Amino acid sequence: MTNPQFLMLVITGPSGAGKSSILKALPEEEFYFSVSHTTRAPRPGEVHGKDYYFISEKEFKEKIEKGEFLEWVKVHDTYYGTSKAEIEKAFSQGKHIVFDIEINGATRLKYLFKEQAVFVFIAPPDFSELEKRLLKRGTESKEKIEKRLLRAKEELKFIPWFDYVIINEDLETSISLLKSIIVAESARPYRLKALSLILNQVL
Amino acid sequence: MTNPQFLMLVITGPSGAGKSSILKALPEEEFYFSVSHTTRAPRPGEVHGKDYYFISEKEFKEKIEKGEFLEWVKVHDTYYGTSKAEIEKAFSQGKHIVFDIEINGATRLKYLFKEQAVFVFIAPPDFSELEKRLLKRGTESKEKIEKRLLRAKEELKFIPWFDYVIINEDLETSISLLKSIIVAESARPYRLKALSLILNQVL
Repeated sequence: MTNPQFLMLVITGPSGAGKSSILKALPEEEFYFSVSHTTRAPRPGEVHGKDYYFISEKEFKEKIEKGEFLEWVKVHDTYYGTSKAEIEKAFSQGKHIVFDIEINGATRLKYLFKEQAVFVFIAPPDFSELEKRLLKRGTESKEKIEKRLLRAKEELKFIPWFDYVIINEDLETSISLLKSIIVAESARPYRLKALSLILNQVL
Repeated sequence: MTNPQFLMLVITGPSGAGKSSILKALPEEEFYFSVSHTTRAPRPGEVHGKDYYFISEKEFKEKIEKGEFLEWVKVHDTYYGTSKAEIEKAFSQGKHIVFDIEINGATRLKYLFKEQAVFVFIAPPDFSELEKRLLKRGTESKEKIEKRLLRAKEELKFIPWFDYVIINEDLETSISLLKSIIVAESARPYRLKALSLILNQVL
């Protein structure tokens, strides 16, 4: 199913850590951004099939029944899931696949893909900084923000289990770090097609 | 003994693959290049304490006896060894340490350091290319070159066991790849001192 030349990149990090700004810097010609299914309503400006596939709870549960999800979770009464078809789409286009996914989804992907996927955590410089960033956004109620902070705290506990961590202090530095990680991971022996030539000559 | 913030970088690759040209690009302010001991005579221009510590076979054997070597090997009647003191020197200067080392030395370091060190193989684009490069040098007899090629063949068999491989087609690309590997490896959770702040806040 998977071609080792193409990376499976799993990116996790609490809202407010700057995940989406960093991911925006990856070129669409090389990276396919896995689109999740969700039962929540679209926010203003969000596009079906780009930000999410917005479906009803009934539809979501049908997809669970049919085994169409790689992983799914229920967070704050909302369902989120990654369909298996996303991986096929990425690889048929000859692109790396990027999963922008919360920690429970990432944990399921770790169980499914283990060493095959690259797990990157995007963290805020510290926890109080995260609080500040979320309050500055001002799009949500205090209660919702507190729920998010509690969740962020739970997520941050997982950092040492990830392959890499980007402590996002400066956007440009973080983008360049993510790109270095991608370049370095592409130099893994098991991902280098050109290596087979050399091995054929010596083994 | 070791500080996880500082990398132990083990670089292996056959002569003619372009190892030294790539390593020259790493700044001396950040990288300490481990100097090996050898019993071979210095070539014109080689400096004791910089290229190698040139010592006699008697002195070399005494150091073996005293357990001063991290690893040592005998290649083509010449002894080569890495003294334990090199690591102390690097870390006391607050630098990453780079071991430019042939495959048997690298294998011993793998046994000693396992996941602690980063193992990078620098390979020629293909085996016949290596032959061409070695012949072009013209500093050695045909017999010596053939010995080197045979040895190179043995070394190349190890590539899939390394963490990363740099197929050196273009020097600038290879240098930039090595730098990306170093940046990426510095983003390993276990190498990030700043992470302890976050963990203290959430665990």
